[in-house]
Amino acid sequence: MNTKKVVIIGGVAGGATAAARLRRLSEQVEIVLFERGEHISFANCGLPYYIGGTIEERDKLLLQTPEKMSKKFNMDIRTRSEVVAINRERKTVTVKKLGSDEIYEKNYDKLILSPGAKPFVPTIKGLDKAPSTFTLRNIPDTDKIKSYINMHNPKHATVIGGGFIGLEMAENLHELGVQVSLVERSRQVMEALDFEMAAILQDHIESKGVKLFLDDSVEEVIGQGEMLLLKSGKTLETDLIILSAGVQPESNLAETAGLALGNRKTIAVNEFLQTSDADIYAVGDAIEVKDIVSGQDCFVPLAWPANRQGRIVADSILGKKTSYRGTLGTAIAKVFDFTGATTGNNEKVLQRLGKPYLTAHIHPNSHAAYYPGAKPMALKILFSSQDGSVYGAQGVGEVGVDKRIDVLATAIKGGLSVYDLSELELAYAPPYSSAKDPVNMLGYVSSNMLEENLKTYQWHEVDRFVKKGKYFLDVREKAEVESGMIKGAYHIPVDDIRERHNELPKDKTIHIYCHAGLRGYLAFRTLSQLGFNVTNLDGGFKTYQMAKKQLEKLNPSDALELV
Amino acid sequence: MNTKKVVIIGGVAGGATAAARLRRLSEQVEIVLFERGEHISFANCGLPYYIGGTIEERDKLLLQTPEKMSKKFNMDIRTRSEVVAINRERKTVTVKKLGSDEIYEKNYDKLILSPGAKPFVPTIKGLDKAPSTFTLRNIPDTDKIKSYINMHNPKHATVIGGGFIGLEMAENLHELGVQVSLVERSRQVMEALDFEMAAILQDHIESKGVKLFLDDSVEEVIGQGEMLLLKSGKTLETDLIILSAGVQPESNLAETAGLALGNRKTIAVNEFLQTSDADIYAVGDAIEVKDIVSGQDCFVPLAWPANRQGRIVADSILGKKTSYRGTLGTAIAKVFDFTGATTGNNEKVLQRLGKPYLTAHIHPNSHAAYYPGAKPMALKILFSSQDGSVYGAQGVGEVGVDKRIDVLATAIKGGLSVYDLSELELAYAPPYSSAKDPVNMLGYVSSNMLEENLKTYQWHEVDRFVKKGKYFLDVREKAEVESGMIKGAYHIPVDDIRERHNELPKDKTIHIYCHAGLRGYLAFRTLSQLGFNVTNLDGGFKTYQMAKKQLEKLNPSDALELV
Repeated sequence: MNTKKVVIIGGVAGGATAAARLRRLSEQVEIVLFERGEHISFANCGLPYYIGGTIEERDKLLLQTPEKMSKKFNMDIRTRSEVVAINRERKTVTVKKLGSDEIYEKNYDKLILSPGAKPFVPTIKGLDKAPSTFTLRNIPDTDKIKSYINMHNPKHATVIGGGFIGLEMAENLHELGVQVSLVERSRQVMEALDFEMAAILQDHIESKGVKLFLDDSVEEVIGQGEMLLLKSGKTLETDLIILSAGVQPESNLAETAGLALGNRKTIAVNEFLQTSDADIYAVGDAIEVKDIVSGQDCFVPLAWPANRQGRIVADSILGKKTSYRGTLGTAIAKVFDFTGATTGNNEKVLQRLGKPYLTAHIHPNSHAAYYPGAKPMALKILFSSQDGSVYGAQGVGEVGVDKRIDVLATAIKGGLSVYDLSELELAYAPPYSSAKDPVNMLGYVSSNMLEENLKTYQWHEVDRFVKKGKYFLDVREKAEVESGMIKGAYHIPVDDIRERHNELPKDKTIHIYCHAGLRGYLAFRTLSQLGFNVTNLDGGFKTYQMAKKQLEKLNPSDALELV
Repeated sequence: MNTKKVVIIGGVAGGATAAARLRRLSEQVEIVLFERGEHISFANCGLPYYIGGTIEERDKLLLQTPEKMSKKFNMDIRTRSEVVAINRERKTVTVKKLGSDEIYEKNYDKLILSPGAKPFVPTIKGLDKAPSTFTLRNIPDTDKIKSYINMHNPKHATVIGGGFIGLEMAENLHELGVQVSLVERSRQVMEALDFEMAAILQDHIESKGVKLFLDDSVEEVIGQGEMLLLKSGKTLETDLIILSAGVQPESNLAETAGLALGNRKTIAVNEFLQTSDADIYAVGDAIEVKDIVSGQDCFVPLAWPANRQGRIVADSILGKKTSYRGTLGTAIAKVFDFTGATTGNNEKVLQRLGKPYLTAHIHPNSHAAYYPGAKPMALKILFSSQDGSVYGAQGVGEVGVDKRIDVLATAIKGGLSVYDLSELELAYAPPYSSAKDPVNMLGYVSSNMLEENLKTYQWHEVDRFVKKGKYFLDVREKAEVESGMIKGAYHIPVDDIRERHNELPKDKTIHIYCHAGLRGYLAFRTLSQLGFNVTNLDGGFKTYQMAKKQLEKLNPSDALELV
């Protein structure tokens, strides 16, 4: 095994990790790494922050130089070397040395593909005539954007696409004092979140002065890119266009070599990350993986899976066959002062799969309210209506969202149910949490639902129920009610319910709500025991109101079909 | 079941939680809550921060007033009412209304004891003559300390006991500009941590100007408390003494009633938290619980278990019998700019139990080093040398320690092994983590140890090995070596190992080390494959150096016996 020749195509994330792990496991294996670009193992997740100036020195993006890595790991790293063909019968790759006419073959015993994914460029009329259009994938892209900004000092920028990179670019351009517009084809940013969770982020983004054009797209680039015509008929002045409309796997080389492809032109692999040719492995953004919760095939171009896969492939090649168990899709983005994060399946996915589920929304504080700096966050959990197993979770807020999503990702990995979430003994002192942590609260609310101590209705049902003339009961305090309530709701503050329940109808379902859901739950408990037919608004008026505010900017008639 | 009379003794944490849950489950149950003090459900974990001024308003400590809680939950709350006897045959309690001569009996169907724990007051000569001595348990204690400080403006304060409350009081008094000395009987602060982890906190505490007197105790209080004589012979000037030398269960009432006690005068309970009298439950700081990792009985007076137990007892009383599965002992403290946190069993416990274990120390950054604000942290994990199951973990650092300990607590709850930790798909973007999260790194290092890709030695073995003339190899860079190395170590920077390995002995075990352990691991891999007999210093020079620095302030001859 020790005289193996391993060739790796692609020197970022998965490829670099595989190379390093190979060497750590064996001094004898020959490792040749081909990288088309100039850099290997650079900080691709840091690129937007260097453009925005949060990361000040360009050198910080270069985690490794080819020279340092070659020496440390005794490997043959060839940058600016493009593999143009895989010759499977001969077990060689054909390499073109960029900037020269040199073409040569290099043989392998095992080949690792880590080609990554490239920005998807939508077909937009006139886009090719706009020299101010950029995508962002690597250091040269970053340099181009940075130098364009320095030279042209743009006043307006348009970001096309509201995914992770789009949001990060919007924030970073805003940091530079540029007036940013973000155009997104779907009805929300950060597709991995559900609508009502993204709504909170959108409200925050707009509060910073970034203009959002959702459910819209660029129809035409006018002139040399100084004006954009949107599908909605709106026009945008712009001096800079960032294309961040998603990525697609770089699978041409694999396809040409006759390797099997998955959906969306991903490279298909088995659980050991072997392609249809057992001597060729593939890792990272280009491959198709299993969704660990649903078992479905999916395409999750993120850093964590790429790194994990690189290591697994190295282990497998050197004799310790290890399987990749699939991807949970845990993801996080800083969006100005907020964090949006998710793990597992969201509601859209569960609906598509037709899986029966329940969901709960809460708005806990990041830590004990009496200790300074506590901030509210919104948490959502999705779980099995049969056995309470956790399908997924989402969080949006200023502080502590990353911690709760990490705990929930760990809980899913551990096969924990919502009942178990109540039992998680998490670290509590006032600066960090509450004696009942937000994750415990998710467990309590969800368990109550499963045990039928609580019945809920959802934010997206409210308007339909109003139209149908359903009975609503607002249990907030007087001052809260004065700043807006659900149309036609009856008002009794929660603490007066026991004295005033005779004012309520026994023959109708009472749709209770409060601000965040907790007082509504108390009212639910009292009234249900008094024989009333009740249900409580999950996530309270807060979830409903924030989602509705964003909905109204779209086509309000679609409201009811949203989830 | 609905006409039950439930009497609760103690209105904080467990007692208050039980009361609220009882009402949420049933409108019919009669709930009477007796509280000796004036306040119920106050923010006991916030008291030090109110004294220090971080929490500015006293009102914030009062989460609930008896009036508000009575109304919201329709319960009979009687404050300043001390239960002086439990009459088990009659199923009544005898209550003394404080500040009056009134004594009466109240009957119960079920009784819940939530008496809490009281500060342990050590026997110190002259202590009773010092009016400047305070303990901290409740609001009146807090008011007394606060008003003493306001009136006397103390220059020096002495905190006796370096546990959670002692550390929080030291910090908060320091915030007020008081010169603080902390005297602790054992050789470290925060007993739940192991020595080398506490050492990092101690170094930080001292850097703030707080004086630590470890492995020492107060022998005598001189005069009216203005001078303390320590066991070591040292004397301390002081204007204020805070006694935070631990707590003991308030079990007198239970004992007098003939209820079975556990170790250390805790109240013994079964898995449903029933005492030896099935109609009497007990929760919170006064009870004995099972250590969930070791299965041993233990006493863990913390907020999370108390709250959880309160809820469980309410469920059990109203028919849904629920067991309390035991306590993990997850705990956290803010210590100036640092956080110290722990979950599960520490090394001291595992040694006492004679359980075979392995341990790993790492020093990862809180998030991607290239993104501003990243801070190093120290993490320690303890796991089974047989199957890799996680026994416990500890963390000390400025940022992100709480998150990792919560993830690890969840992993223990989920029965995950160190192999699984490598597979935890945690949320990564540069402001939050690294593509390999610190918890993943713990998994990788630990798995390498179990799979014999890595052999380590521990910080506390270094000096003994030096004495024995063992061979040490320092693989750090030249500049690092110049600021201090292990006595007699040979130096080859990691990247030169392949070229210079012939300088190393083949007939001796080579004790490799670097700064934090990672480069030492690389050198280990290379050298072990070249046929050398090697071992790597776990946690690197950093763990060793910090522990040694603290050790040297104690009795250095004890060094080797420390863990």
